[in-house]
Amino acid sequence: MRMRLSAYSFDGAASPFSRLVLALAAAASSGGIVAYAGSKFDNTAEQTQVAQKKKMVVLGTGWAGTAFLKNLDYSLYDVKVISPRNYFTFTPLLPSVTCGTVEPRSIVEPIRKIIGKKGEEIDYWEADCYKINTVGKKVLCRSKIGTNLDGTGEFVVDYDYLVIAVGAQVNTFNTPGVMEHCHFLKEIEDARRIRRSVIDCFEKASLPYLDEEERKKNLHFVIVGGGPTGVEFAAELHDFVAEDLTKLYPAIQDLVKISVIQSGEHILTMFDQRIAEFAEAKFQRDGIDVRTGYRVVKISDNSITMKCKSTGETSEPYGMAVWSAGVGTRPVIVDVMKQIGQENRRVLTTDEWLRVCGCDGIYAIGDCATISQRKVMEDISAIFKFADKDNSGTLTVKEIQDIFEDLCIRYPQLELYLKSKHMSDIADLIRDAKGGDVEKGSMQLDIDELKIALAHVDSQVKSLPATAQVAAQQGQYLAQCFNSMRDCEEHPTGPLRLRDSGRHRFRPFQYKHFGQFAPLGGEQAAAELPGDWISIGHGSQWLWYSVYASKQVSWRTRVLVISDWLRRFIFGRDTSCI
Amino acid sequence: MRMRLSAYSFDGAASPFSRLVLALAAAASSGGIVAYAGSKFDNTAEQTQVAQKKKMVVLGTGWAGTAFLKNLDYSLYDVKVISPRNYFTFTPLLPSVTCGTVEPRSIVEPIRKIIGKKGEEIDYWEADCYKINTVGKKVLCRSKIGTNLDGTGEFVVDYDYLVIAVGAQVNTFNTPGVMEHCHFLKEIEDARRIRRSVIDCFEKASLPYLDEEERKKNLHFVIVGGGPTGVEFAAELHDFVAEDLTKLYPAIQDLVKISVIQSGEHILTMFDQRIAEFAEAKFQRDGIDVRTGYRVVKISDNSITMKCKSTGETSEPYGMAVWSAGVGTRPVIVDVMKQIGQENRRVLTTDEWLRVCGCDGIYAIGDCATISQRKVMEDISAIFKFADKDNSGTLTVKEIQDIFEDLCIRYPQLELYLKSKHMSDIADLIRDAKGGDVEKGSMQLDIDELKIALAHVDSQVKSLPATAQVAAQQGQYLAQCFNSMRDCEEHPTGPLRLRDSGRHRFRPFQYKHFGQFAPLGGEQAAAELPGDWISIGHGSQWLWYSVYASKQVSWRTRVLVISDWLRRFIFGRDTSCI
Repeated sequence: MRMRLSAYSFDGAASPFSRLVLALAAAASSGGIVAYAGSKFDNTAEQTQVAQKKKMVVLGTGWAGTAFLKNLDYSLYDVKVISPRNYFTFTPLLPSVTCGTVEPRSIVEPIRKIIGKKGEEIDYWEADCYKINTVGKKVLCRSKIGTNLDGTGEFVVDYDYLVIAVGAQVNTFNTPGVMEHCHFLKEIEDARRIRRSVIDCFEKASLPYLDEEERKKNLHFVIVGGGPTGVEFAAELHDFVAEDLTKLYPAIQDLVKISVIQSGEHILTMFDQRIAEFAEAKFQRDGIDVRTGYRVVKISDNSITMKCKSTGETSEPYGMAVWSAGVGTRPVIVDVMKQIGQENRRVLTTDEWLRVCGCDGIYAIGDCATISQRKVMEDISAIFKFADKDNSGTLTVKEIQDIFEDLCIRYPQLELYLKSKHMSDIADLIRDAKGGDVEKGSMQLDIDELKIALAHVDSQVKSLPATAQVAAQQGQYLAQCFNSMRDCEEHPTGPLRLRDSGRHRFRPFQYKHFGQFAPLGGEQAAAELPGDWISIGHGSQWLWYSVYASKQVSWRTRVLVISDWLRRFIFGRDTSCI
Repeated sequence: MRMRLSAYSFDGAASPFSRLVLALAAAASSGGIVAYAGSKFDNTAEQTQVAQKKKMVVLGTGWAGTAFLKNLDYSLYDVKVISPRNYFTFTPLLPSVTCGTVEPRSIVEPIRKIIGKKGEEIDYWEADCYKINTVGKKVLCRSKIGTNLDGTGEFVVDYDYLVIAVGAQVNTFNTPGVMEHCHFLKEIEDARRIRRSVIDCFEKASLPYLDEEERKKNLHFVIVGGGPTGVEFAAELHDFVAEDLTKLYPAIQDLVKISVIQSGEHILTMFDQRIAEFAEAKFQRDGIDVRTGYRVVKISDNSITMKCKSTGETSEPYGMAVWSAGVGTRPVIVDVMKQIGQENRRVLTTDEWLRVCGCDGIYAIGDCATISQRKVMEDISAIFKFADKDNSGTLTVKEIQDIFEDLCIRYPQLELYLKSKHMSDIADLIRDAKGGDVEKGSMQLDIDELKIALAHVDSQVKSLPATAQVAAQQGQYLAQCFNSMRDCEEHPTGPLRLRDSGRHRFRPFQYKHFGQFAPLGGEQAAAELPGDWISIGHGSQWLWYSVYASKQVSWRTRVLVISDWLRRFIFGRDTSCI
């Protein structure tokens, strides 16, 4: 009814009475209680966007959610943000927080501040979304900070658009004892707990009347998982011990042992092999025990059991264990996947425009989602038909080149494949498929020849890693789509539609890799930069410092992170167990 | 046996065999297991101090314990420090930590660092002392960080000297619900919890579908106790709300209410009345509700019940309550008091040299102890007898003046009493007692006249407040006593003994009051300085800043506290709920 009234007010027939009702309706709307979601007047309402914005719910305030919120034009939608954490965390510095190189508050920024900068008022609610009703377009939430609101702290929010950016959770691979005895490294509170626990281990090992075995056990730090987080934590811990703790605990300094347990053959497998080798060599020099090929099978309160193909099962006592061996799916996401028939997937599958496949109005970004890139070979007939403008049943090189640019936008693997073959033109690829000694201009090819030419293109399709960089780019991309949605309806900017007329509204999301870092301790880091550049050593650490300082979400955190580094240089890390 | 051997080695009769045994014994000693405390060879052993230091145990690392450790000469004793916290906290800044004006790590310093600065190695053990055996001279401790050490984490330590500096604990006056529902403000962890809780209240009040009553309830902050801590917290909270939170929570800013509940007629009763009045007026201007004359009788999970003589019992809903209404005695101290017949006292009673009355080798400093100042009237006969050198049965003015200086050291109330009467000479006091018109030189007085003259002197005896200033001075004093114990045995520096020949080894402890501060928010503070000086307003806040910066325990904390203040000026306080 409200929407109809808004429409009225726009078609010039607004009486004083209808204006009054409109004002009342607008007041009710600003109160947040909206009962007409999914009404049949939706289309009309969109035309009267000022009075009646579409309801958008954003779940999560991590990298993806925050990047989305930073870039969204709030004036276009009625936005509600729901997240159990009222702040954004700069997660790449979490390992630094575990040892006090950087303070927790230096890497967080209140989400209300990030939102507030844009001037418009939007609602943020500190709650967990525990269920999404994809048919009724509702999210069911629970506030964990109190049991008001009918005693349970639960409430329901309607949406027209839902942006899911809830991230992933720890994956224990059902290993017994992990949940009970291991630390994790996903949240700021985890990092704090690890810091206290490291000091606790040193204090425990300093107590009187212990034998050396007991002291050694307390000072055995085990890191399960040789990915970037685990490796960086091991490096930070080694520095913390070497630079700060040995001075204060001289009696037990020789008993400290740090172990990294990795199931694969090398640590840092997602990096270039030269970096992995450098890291392993550096860790060996530092006395960090890297055990590759070991899989942890059980963790009890004081020993960790692992299995190796060659030597079988062994157990070792430990003082503290950190589990950083992969990510798993949050229950709320598992539930959504069941509702929309994705139960066999690992995470939510979206199309290249980040829309969750199989439902309406839901978008997923960051670690909780993966993009299912459309394969060239799936569409090969449609491509052939579309390119064959003259319906001759064969394609000329020109016909292919005419749609080549749009094909590359729709199927980025095509360009990657050409690059991997060191070719610049699709004509080269076709000539290659045809035998190699044909003149480009006169080439003709039928569908089977096209299939042969493009047969291996889809091998270049790779799913994106679960990193901050990917999440942030997705958030930014999606916000830009929402901002330009109205414009793009009329002036679409995406590639040509193969089966339909016209163009897609937007270009598909494309990830740009800016490189990655692995800090290795002792003021050394390894950097993998785009274009196959590798940088290892002290210089990379400075690069790391400057990139991480520049990537901070606000000037406040930037100044604080830099002053934390400075403080550490001057005074060392604090060892108070708080 | 070990001590005997040490003695042997000093009397020149050491054979190669005995030297070997001696070395073994010394090795055993350094292992920390000593079984001959209180042996009859103690006196001999003291002469061979290098080989056999007295065992000293220090309990606590608060103001008193840390001041003691900072000033002690570790080369003279075999020192063990036992405390559940491995750091010192600059407690006057705790209220600032509750709202993020200062960060927790900026006001703590690891005790190992403080100890380590002196070069000598001494043991620190992170544990709680849960029982003191005053007869067997043992402390029974329990480590809370692990259940190693025979499964319970318990261990026993012998001592020759025990320095108790465990401080006080919260006093709920047995009010029901306080322990379950109130925050306290004694430890760094308390301050952190309060900070999270304040933000939680704001987030709770921002949730959707709440009525205004519910929002108001969540934003009602109650402080029970109008002492310096409670008042400072109320002021900090008001600033936090006014300067930072209202910007981020504009919709609910008008619903915030801060109440201070005080059972007495004024807040800040330990300050000059002008300060109390200024504070009350400022709080009224700020909209802080100060309720004097109200006693809290019950606290449930969402309402607080209080009683007022005039209006009876009332209940009010609240979102968060902080209890800062007085200090109580720790169970371990209550147990010691039972053992030594002090069960009727509030805290451990010591003599003026900080030795616990009724036991041997135990010293108590800080909030867990109070000094029982010897009264002049209790010793009046001894004083008379001692002063009457010629045994004439009467005293001349000269005879009294001869011992006046020593009397003033032994009984500081004497000097205070003269000051309060605006007299500079004891002769004036005597002349006053005798009627007033006698010539000083020829005055003679008998014991009854002396009694009359000194009758009201003891009214000046006041117990010291439980403040950081007192604790720190006691710690420093006691360390100096221990450092000079050997010298002072031979060359005592204390006042003359009245009943015995010679002098006391040391001057009794005397507290010097350097003034006190009450920060009142909005960059204003009240300062009470020695000599009845009062300073109120913005200038005092700067004085407060500079004094608190200068009193920091290390350069690290000094720099951090100042940079925290700076950060707050530039960026405001952080509102992330971590």
